[in-house]
Amino acid sequence: MIRLVVLDVDGTLTDRERRISTDAIINIRRAVNSGVLISFVSGNALPVMFGLKTFIGTNAPVFGENGGIVLINDTIKTFFSKEKCDKFLDEISKTTSARPMFTNIWRQTSSAFTMDEKDYEFISKEAEKRDLYIVNSKFTWHVMNKGQDKAYAVNFLKKFYNYDYNEILVMGDSDNDLSMFDLPVKKAAPANASENIKVKSEYVSEFAYGTQVGDVFKYFGII
Amino acid sequence: MIRLVVLDVDGTLTDRERRISTDAIINIRRAVNSGVLISFVSGNALPVMFGLKTFIGTNAPVFGENGGIVLINDTIKTFFSKEKCDKFLDEISKTTSARPMFTNIWRQTSSAFTMDEKDYEFISKEAEKRDLYIVNSKFTWHVMNKGQDKAYAVNFLKKFYNYDYNEILVMGDSDNDLSMFDLPVKKAAPANASENIKVKSEYVSEFAYGTQVGDVFKYFGII
Repeated sequence: MIRLVVLDVDGTLTDRERRISTDAIINIRRAVNSGVLISFVSGNALPVMFGLKTFIGTNAPVFGENGGIVLINDTIKTFFSKEKCDKFLDEISKTTSARPMFTNIWRQTSSAFTMDEKDYEFISKEAEKRDLYIVNSKFTWHVMNKGQDKAYAVNFLKKFYNYDYNEILVMGDSDNDLSMFDLPVKKAAPANASENIKVKSEYVSEFAYGTQVGDVFKYFGII
Repeated sequence: MIRLVVLDVDGTLTDRERRISTDAIINIRRAVNSGVLISFVSGNALPVMFGLKTFIGTNAPVFGENGGIVLINDTIKTFFSKEKCDKFLDEISKTTSARPMFTNIWRQTSSAFTMDEKDYEFISKEAEKRDLYIVNSKFTWHVMNKGQDKAYAVNFLKKFYNYDYNEILVMGDSDNDLSMFDLPVKKAAPANASENIKVKSEYVSEFAYGTQVGDVFKYFGII
């Protein structure tokens, strides 16, 4: 029986323009009403996740910065520091197309940036040298600390609630979600998910961009 | 003709538990599609408003902290400072029930707090002495600078777009919205609005907590 659902946000609950599916909101509320815990784990800054949790009305901690920071009731917990990330971004933006995002003032454990795809290989390698890594969360690039990923967030929740992996369902759409798809949890994906995500999913919905939420919840007996 | 709609959030688009109405989201998107500008002015921190703007998909600047701060495209502009507010809250929390909110780390021009109603008169008078004032945005108390209110935000947008007051529609539900209801703009309210708001509104919908958005937009020929 699924007791906890961990949801990616961009591309999983939203469309290509980041607009949330009202159908997803309705089905998440149904799941909450049926007693299942719903958590969000996103690359977004934590206050954006706090807002989403509040406006939808979910019932479990929410994570920002790809798992680097969590809000549990009214308490913020950070698992990493942004110092090295900021310093790296500062450096690399002098010689490449990398540019910090204005949302970084709301981040505490990582930094977000934009860049031209052509710089990917160079910036990625430079990050590696500093024990950092970069990842794309669909709309933004992020520079993060090693070990800072969505699996970290899922494992935190597993321990926090003392649940088994098979009581946890994760849903995501992009390679940024792969770390949590490598855990022995239940996995589902929307039709718009990457091939890497689809092959690891127990259930791939024929619906996409948030409209799959109700379909997936029904498949797993949540609603 | 209405060209710009300025919306309060809590109680105007949400229910008593702060959950947003999916019906409101759908009708806001209809208005955006019909070419009307939609702005939010809320007591919430700015990143929460950034998230709301992104997830709904609106097309005009959004204000946090009751008008003290605005996001225009990717640029943040602050109109006031939080220094005096923080100092006051620090002081007053030593002798009263006032307690700062954890969301203050995301605020730049004001401070939010909780308190027992019994302390209202005393804290309000002490704020006055320092040229500050306190206001309740339905879920939180705020200490703000004199002149920092929603009328300030509406006047900023009026100037920014060079519109007439009668091309602007405001919608709100609580006394925290009164400053913008005192402007010579078009005004509408949900059924759950305070009496002070209702008497100043051209149109009071029979629908409430966000479900009035479509009804109000139809009344004013927006959708």
